[in-house]
Amino acid sequence: MEPVLFYGIPHGCSFGSIVALEWLGKPYRLVRIDMLAKEKDARYIEVSPLGQTPALVLEDGRPLTESLAILLNIAGRDLGSGLGFAQGTPELDRLNSMLSYLHTTFHSAFAPAWTAYKLAEDDPDREMLRALARDQAAKCYARLQDMLEGRGWLAGDRKTVADAYFIGIARWGEDLGLFDLASEYPGLHEHIRKLEADPGVVFAHAIEDGRPATSSGGFLGHVTPEELEVRAAA
Amino acid sequence: MEPVLFYGIPHGCSFGSIVALEWLGKPYRLVRIDMLAKEKDARYIEVSPLGQTPALVLEDGRPLTESLAILLNIAGRDLGSGLGFAQGTPELDRLNSMLSYLHTTFHSAFAPAWTAYKLAEDDPDREMLRALARDQAAKCYARLQDMLEGRGWLAGDRKTVADAYFIGIARWGEDLGLFDLASEYPGLHEHIRKLEADPGVVFAHAIEDGRPATSSGGFLGHVTPEELEVRAAA
Repeated sequence: MEPVLFYGIPHGCSFGSIVALEWLGKPYRLVRIDMLAKEKDARYIEVSPLGQTPALVLEDGRPLTESLAILLNIAGRDLGSGLGFAQGTPELDRLNSMLSYLHTTFHSAFAPAWTAYKLAEDDPDREMLRALARDQAAKCYARLQDMLEGRGWLAGDRKTVADAYFIGIARWGEDLGLFDLASEYPGLHEHIRKLEADPGVVFAHAIEDGRPATSSGGFLGHVTPEELEVRAAA
Repeated sequence: MEPVLFYGIPHGCSFGSIVALEWLGKPYRLVRIDMLAKEKDARYIEVSPLGQTPALVLEDGRPLTESLAILLNIAGRDLGSGLGFAQGTPELDRLNSMLSYLHTTFHSAFAPAWTAYKLAEDDPDREMLRALARDQAAKCYARLQDMLEGRGWLAGDRKTVADAYFIGIARWGEDLGLFDLASEYPGLHEHIRKLEADPGVVFAHAIEDGRPATSSGGFLGHVTPEELEVRAAA
């Protein structure tokens, strides 16, 4: 069976893996997971024991968790696609470094604000946590804006899985009401604008929002965790 | 010139990169960076603009930042060493997944406690942040202990750069006074004990502590950032 990606709504970091699969252009399927649901599907927890998305079920049924590992797996499926690079090259070093920065420093910058999001409106810790997140994320936005100066894409002169991941995370600053990116980081906002016009990104938004989505890649449709189990047993 | 690793004291996550270099067994040098120093060396900031360690200066003078990218670079230098795996293999997927988990969820679990560490003793936010870190890190210790059951090493049946990184981070729970690992996670503590007896880990501790250190790998000595600049220009 073709690879199957479990993605999370609303606004999960799995967004980047959908974009990367679109850019790769090879057949894949999707499983939709409501991250706010109290009850987790048993088959889903089997695939992703921590209940995180993204998770990728590979052709042989093996589950692969962790966004960074999934993106490197996708990029490695066709080095000719330009989404990644061959082992032992300076280009792969640069991509790994950028992917790591985005998955550690950038992603975790927002963590205190997500903690605050789950607290009651009048919880005294709320504003402290939001201020901490804003402070941390501001440094990241400024750094990414600096890095983009004079080059077209995050990991060099062509789009890679780093850009796919970036566009799923960068929006959190506005989602959480912490930033107005267009006025505060105009250079970075330009990169966001460019990515938002990309057919793979447009597709991933439609998928997340549950709207009709036109794939320019190899999307073969959604499956439920149950259907996936039946297929795996077949 | 051989690769040069900038490592941070005290108790940086760069510890794992020293261990990995020892395990690789090829020539390398070290630069020692006091992470608590107010003034940062200019050459160091050139190599690592965010002032983070580890940072690796490669043979051609190119700087590589981000621990995960450095560890994959080290592992990729000799796939026969067993520290890493070839692109396109299930083993590399598993290693990437483990490295990512350690660098994102595990590393960042401790972040609130490091924030608390910088606050005044009587700061009212201190205990909340420490409790948050303990809660997050407890889940990680439990998960890692589960994963180690029935296998010898974190990413399979032999030691890899994932184990090297793990041993530099796992100690933080006790460094920060949040856990007693021997009594709370005896299975995980056993893995820590095994790693602590490894010559590469013994060496890395001696290096961090500024004690005489015996390399069983290719350590050629320390250089200062200034000496490194002279070498680069030569």
